[in-house]
Amino acid sequence: MNGHEEEQTAFEIGVVVPKRSANEENEDCDCVGVLVDEFRKAGLIVERVQGIADEFIKLAAPLETLGRAAAELQLRKRTHIGMDLQFEWEEVEAFVRQPDGSLFSWCERFHCYQHLIYGIVNKSQSTVTLKFEGNEYHWKAGENIVQKLESEHFVKQVFPLHDELKRKNLLKSWALHWWNLTNQPIDEIYSYFGTKIAIYFAFLGMYTQWMLFPAAFAIALQLIDFGSLRLLVLPVFFVGIILWAVIFSQFWKRKNSALLARWQISYSVAVDPGYKLLGMEWSSLQSPGELLRKWGTDKTNEKEVYQKNEWFGYLMRFRNDSIFILSIICLQLPFELAYAHLYEVIGSDIMKFGLTAFYILSIQHFTRVCGKISVKLIKHENNETTEKRADSLVYKVFGLYFMQSYIGIFYHALLHRNFLTLRQVLIQRLLVSQVFENLLENTLPYLKYSYKKYRVRDKKKREKGFSTRKIQFTTRVEKEYMKSSYSASIGEELEDGLFDDFLELALQFGMIMMFACAFPLSFAFAALNNITEIKTDALKLLTMFKRPVPRAATTIGAWLNIFQFLIVLSICTNCALLVWLYDQEGNWSIEPGLAAILVMEHILLLIKFGVSRFVPEEPAWVRASRVKNATQAQDMCSKQLLRTISVGKKVFGVGREGERGK
Amino acid sequence: MNGHEEEQTAFEIGVVVPKRSANEENEDCDCVGVLVDEFRKAGLIVERVQGIADEFIKLAAPLETLGRAAAELQLRKRTHIGMDLQFEWEEVEAFVRQPDGSLFSWCERFHCYQHLIYGIVNKSQSTVTLKFEGNEYHWKAGENIVQKLESEHFVKQVFPLHDELKRKNLLKSWALHWWNLTNQPIDEIYSYFGTKIAIYFAFLGMYTQWMLFPAAFAIALQLIDFGSLRLLVLPVFFVGIILWAVIFSQFWKRKNSALLARWQISYSVAVDPGYKLLGMEWSSLQSPGELLRKWGTDKTNEKEVYQKNEWFGYLMRFRNDSIFILSIICLQLPFELAYAHLYEVIGSDIMKFGLTAFYILSIQHFTRVCGKISVKLIKHENNETTEKRADSLVYKVFGLYFMQSYIGIFYHALLHRNFLTLRQVLIQRLLVSQVFENLLENTLPYLKYSYKKYRVRDKKKREKGFSTRKIQFTTRVEKEYMKSSYSASIGEELEDGLFDDFLELALQFGMIMMFACAFPLSFAFAALNNITEIKTDALKLLTMFKRPVPRAATTIGAWLNIFQFLIVLSICTNCALLVWLYDQEGNWSIEPGLAAILVMEHILLLIKFGVSRFVPEEPAWVRASRVKNATQAQDMCSKQLLRTISVGKKVFGVGREGERGK
Repeated sequence: MNGHEEEQTAFEIGVVVPKRSANEENEDCDCVGVLVDEFRKAGLIVERVQGIADEFIKLAAPLETLGRAAAELQLRKRTHIGMDLQFEWEEVEAFVRQPDGSLFSWCERFHCYQHLIYGIVNKSQSTVTLKFEGNEYHWKAGENIVQKLESEHFVKQVFPLHDELKRKNLLKSWALHWWNLTNQPIDEIYSYFGTKIAIYFAFLGMYTQWMLFPAAFAIALQLIDFGSLRLLVLPVFFVGIILWAVIFSQFWKRKNSALLARWQISYSVAVDPGYKLLGMEWSSLQSPGELLRKWGTDKTNEKEVYQKNEWFGYLMRFRNDSIFILSIICLQLPFELAYAHLYEVIGSDIMKFGLTAFYILSIQHFTRVCGKISVKLIKHENNETTEKRADSLVYKVFGLYFMQSYIGIFYHALLHRNFLTLRQVLIQRLLVSQVFENLLENTLPYLKYSYKKYRVRDKKKREKGFSTRKIQFTTRVEKEYMKSSYSASIGEELEDGLFDDFLELALQFGMIMMFACAFPLSFAFAALNNITEIKTDALKLLTMFKRPVPRAATTIGAWLNIFQFLIVLSICTNCALLVWLYDQEGNWSIEPGLAAILVMEHILLLIKFGVSRFVPEEPAWVRASRVKNATQAQDMCSKQLLRTISVGKKVFGVGREGERGK
Repeated sequence: MNGHEEEQTAFEIGVVVPKRSANEENEDCDCVGVLVDEFRKAGLIVERVQGIADEFIKLAAPLETLGRAAAELQLRKRTHIGMDLQFEWEEVEAFVRQPDGSLFSWCERFHCYQHLIYGIVNKSQSTVTLKFEGNEYHWKAGENIVQKLESEHFVKQVFPLHDELKRKNLLKSWALHWWNLTNQPIDEIYSYFGTKIAIYFAFLGMYTQWMLFPAAFAIALQLIDFGSLRLLVLPVFFVGIILWAVIFSQFWKRKNSALLARWQISYSVAVDPGYKLLGMEWSSLQSPGELLRKWGTDKTNEKEVYQKNEWFGYLMRFRNDSIFILSIICLQLPFELAYAHLYEVIGSDIMKFGLTAFYILSIQHFTRVCGKISVKLIKHENNETTEKRADSLVYKVFGLYFMQSYIGIFYHALLHRNFLTLRQVLIQRLLVSQVFENLLENTLPYLKYSYKKYRVRDKKKREKGFSTRKIQFTTRVEKEYMKSSYSASIGEELEDGLFDDFLELALQFGMIMMFACAFPLSFAFAALNNITEIKTDALKLLTMFKRPVPRAATTIGAWLNIFQFLIVLSICTNCALLVWLYDQEGNWSIEPGLAAILVMEHILLLIKFGVSRFVPEEPAWVRASRVKNATQAQDMCSKQLLRTISVGKKVFGVGREGERGK
C-alpha cells in the first residue's frame, strides 16, 4: 500500500511563471507566492524551482486530494463487481486498482489535476491585488486565478511533467530494448501515457508482427524462380494479402476490446468532461423524483428535439463533407496532375528540382490552410465527444493527404504503362517518405529544442553581459519546458501528435496495398520500417517531447475505417494492375460501355457498404434515452451498492490475503 | 386499475385431456380432478369444458399469481428509471406497464404460465396413484405432474388460447380494415402476439410502403415512351432501386430499434429462459461475496475456457456450413440444372407436366430431408440463444431455397440470351409463386381444420351409432384445438410459421431485385402482392391458426443479412444484364482473363465485407464478463433501488395524478 502512496507524490504537473529579478525579493502580495499558497490550500504538494529564464512550480497531489477531486468531478470508475460507478472517496476500497497498483489511471489523475488547478477561485468578497515586478493583477471575487493569470500571460504554460523513474524504466524496457522487436510493455505504456497512445503502440506492434508474413511471402516471391508458374504466383499473392489485411483489421478490433477489458475500461462512457449528446447538455443530473415526474409528459417532445438535432447534424456534416470533397477535386486534383505532368515534360534537372521545391512549399501551405478550414467547419458540427470531432477532422485531412500521395503515382502508372517505371516510382516514394520522415520527425523536435535553449542562453548572456562562462540548464523541469509539445502538424486544437504517426502508417498501408502486385517487395520494406518506427516513436515520446496530455480515446477511431477503405480500394487497383500485366498485347481491351458499367457497379457496391457506416442503426433519441437511463439508474443506487461491495470486500478480504500467502 | 385486473383473468392457456365416458362418473383419485386441483392450488383460475371428443381445462391467472411466478423466474423488467431489474411482486409499482395498460407483456405472461403449469410437483413423500378409465398413472414424489401425463399421452396438448375480445378487435381494426392498406395497429399486434410477430408485420408494412416508390417508377417506365433516352432510363432505374434497397435496409434497423424503445424492450438481455453463453450455464447466480473471492483467482482460467469454447464453436459452425454448402453444390445444383435442361429439351407437353410433377415432389422431399439434417447439425453448434440457433437454421435453409428458386431462371437467361423469354419466365414464376402460395397458405390450414373436424364427427357418429343428427362443435376451445398450430413447413422444432412468411418475402425480394433491369414491372406486382399479403397473413393468424407461442426475438435476425446479401448479388446480376442488353452485337466481348479477374475481385469484395459479419469484434470472454458483471451488479442493488423508486413514485404520484386531471 505504501508503495503507490509514495508514487502518487511524484511531481506530475509543472506551471511556468516569470522569474523574479533579484532586487525585489521580499514583497507583499507577491503573485507567485499567492499562487503557491492557493495550490497548497487546494491540497497539492508544491515545489518551487528557479530556472535560468523562468520559475517553475512543480505540483504533486496526495492520493486523498486526487480522490476528493475525482468525487467532485463525479468520475466513473470500475468497481470490483464490474460496474462503473461514481467515485466516492469514502468507499475507495470498492474500486478496482490499475494493473500497476495505483488507484487512478494517468488520464484520471490528469483530469483531477486540471480540476484542482483550474478550480481555485477567489472565495473572499473583495478583489485581491497581486503584484509582480511593477505589474498589478486584480483577482476579482469568484474569478479563477490560473485562468486569470494565463489570460494576462503571467502563467506561461501548465504542462504535465515526465516521471523520471518511470521514464527511465520505459526507456530501458521499451525504447532501447533492441532485440525485443515487436513485443512492447503495453501495460506500462498505458499507465504512463494513457489509453490513446498505448492503443497506438499496440496497433503498431500488432501491425508489424502481422506484416512479417506478407513480407516473408514477398521475399520468397523475389528470390525463388517459379518458372512456368510465374503468372499464377502474383494473383495468389494478391488474394493472400487481401485476406491478410481483412483478417488483420477484424482481429485488431478483437485485440482492442481485449485490451480495454484488461485495463477495466468500458467502451460506452468516456471520461470526457465535455460530453454532449447531440449538442444538448445533460451532464446536469436530475433528481430521481423530478425524472419520474417528467417521464410521461415531455418524452415525445424530447424525442422530436433529438430527431431534429440528429438530422440537422447529418445535414451539416453532409454540407461540410461536400464542400471539402469538392474543393479537393476542383483545387487539389488539377494542381497535382499539373505538377506530375510538368515533372514528366521538363527535361533539365535544375528545373525539376525547382518545380519540386515549389510544389512542396505550395502543397504544405495548401494543406495547412485546408486543415484550418476543416477545423473551423467541424466546430459547426454536432459531434458528441472530442474524439468524434477528431475523427471527423481525420477523415477530411486524410482526403487531402490521399490525393497528395497517390495521384502522382496513378498518373505515372497511367502515363508510362510500364511496370518497371512504376516500381521505381514506388521505391523512390517509399524510401523518401519513410527514411526522410523518420529522420525529420526525430531531428526536428531536437533542433527546435536546441534552438530554444540557444535563444534562452543568448538572451541571458546579453542581459547579464558576461559571455565567457557557459550557462548550463541544471533543472530537469526547465529542460522539459524547452521541449516541444506532442502536437499534430495540422490543427493543434483537435489532434495530438498521434495524428502524424497514424497518417504515416495509413499512407504506407495504402502505398503497399494498392500497388501490391506491381511491387510485392514493398511489404518487406514496410516491415523493416515499422520495426524502426516502433523504436523511434518510443524514443521520440520519451526523450524529445514534453509528456503528452492523456486522451480518453479507447479505439483508433477513424483510422480503422480508413484502413478498411484502403483495403477495398486496393482490391480494385490490384485487379486493374493484373489486367494490365497479363494483357500485354491489348487483346482484353475494355470497351467504353463495359467500363462504364463496371465503374457503376463498383460505386454501387461502395455505397451499399458505406451507408451502414454512415447512417447509424439506432436513432439518436433511442440511444440518448438508453444512455441517460443507465446513467441515472446507476447514480441512484451507487451509494447503497458501494456500501454493499465494501462490506463484502472486508468480510472476504481476509480470505483473499490467506490465499495470496500460499 | 380494475380494467386490466379484469383483463388478466381472460383464459389464456388450454390443456387437452381425454373426455370421460359417461358410465364411470364418480371415482376417487380421478386423474383430471387431481390435475384441476393442483392447478387451483398453484393459484390459477380453472374452467373445465366438455368438448365432443376431449375435455378441455382452460386456465387463467390473476395478476398476483403471475407476479409471484415472474419473481420466481427472476424475470427482468423495465423499471420507471429505465433500467431492467428483477421483478419483485412487493415493488410492483416500480415497473413500467405495457402500452395497453397491463403489467406483463404476452411473452412474459406465457413464460409465467409455463412456469406455473410445469412447476407442479408432488410435494408429499409418497407416490400418488391417478386413475382414469382403467389406466393408472403413478405420480412419484418430486415428479412433475404435467410432464408425467404428457409422456403418458394423457395430456394431449398445452396450447395458448385466443382472447376472443381482442381477436375480434384486431380483426376489425387490422385484418378486415381494407382501405387502410399499409398502416397497421402495431402496438395492438405486439400486445396480442408478442415481439416477433409484431416485428414481422412492422417490417412487412414498411417494406410495402417503401415498395410503392419503385413500383411507381416502374409503371412510369412502362407507360412513358422515352424515345432516344430509352437506353439511359434503365441504368437510372437500376441505380435508383439499389439506392432504394440500401437505404431501406438501413432505415429498417432504425425503425426496429425505435419500436423496441417504444415497447420498453432492451436489446441485450432476451427473456429467453434457456440463455446460455457459449455452452456454459451461468444462470446460476453467484452471491456477491463468492464472486469477489473468485474474482482474482480464476479470471485467467475462465478467459481460456471462453476462448477455447469460442473457437471450437467457430470450428463446428464452419464444419456444418461447409457440409451444407458442399451438399447443395454437389447434389442440388446438378439436379436443378438437369431439370431445367430436360424441360427445355422435351417437346411434348405431357412429358413436361410429368417432369415438373416429379421435380416438385422430389425437391420437396429433398428440402425436407435437408431441413432435418440441418436441425440435427445445429444442435451440435454452441449457439447462445434459441434465436441464434434459429438464425443458423435460416441461413442454411435459405441456401436450399435460393438454389431452388433462381438456378432455373439463371439457366433460362443464359440459354436463351433473350430478354423476352426471361421476362416470360419471371412473370410466370412471380404469378405462380405469389398467387399459388397465397392461396395455398390460406386454404391448406382451413382444409386441415375441416378434415380434423370431419374425422372427429365421423368417429363420434360411428361410436354412438346415430348418423342422422349433425354434430355441432359448440365450444370455442375445441374449435381452436382443431386448428393447426402456426409452425414452419420445415423443422418445426426451431422455427415458427414466420419462417415461411419471411422466406416468401426474401425470395420475392431476390426475384425482383436480381432481375430488376430485365423486368422493372415486377416491382408493381410485388407491391400489389405485399398489400394482399399483409391482409391474408393477418387473417391467417387471427382465424386459421391456434394463437402462436410468443417468441422473444427482437429483430428480424438472419433475414436482414439475407436481404443485404441479395442487394449485393443484385448489383452484380443487374450489371451483367445491362452489359447483355447494350452489347447486342457482341462487341464488348469479355475475354477469359478479364472475366477471371473480375470474378476474383467480386469474391474478394464479398469476403472483405463478409468477414466483419462473421468474426465478432469482441472476444467472447470480454462479452461474457461484461454481461455477467452488469447482471450481477444489478442483482445486488436491485432491492434497494426498487424501494427508492417506489418511494419516489408515491411521493410524486399525487403530482402526476394532478397533472393528468388537467
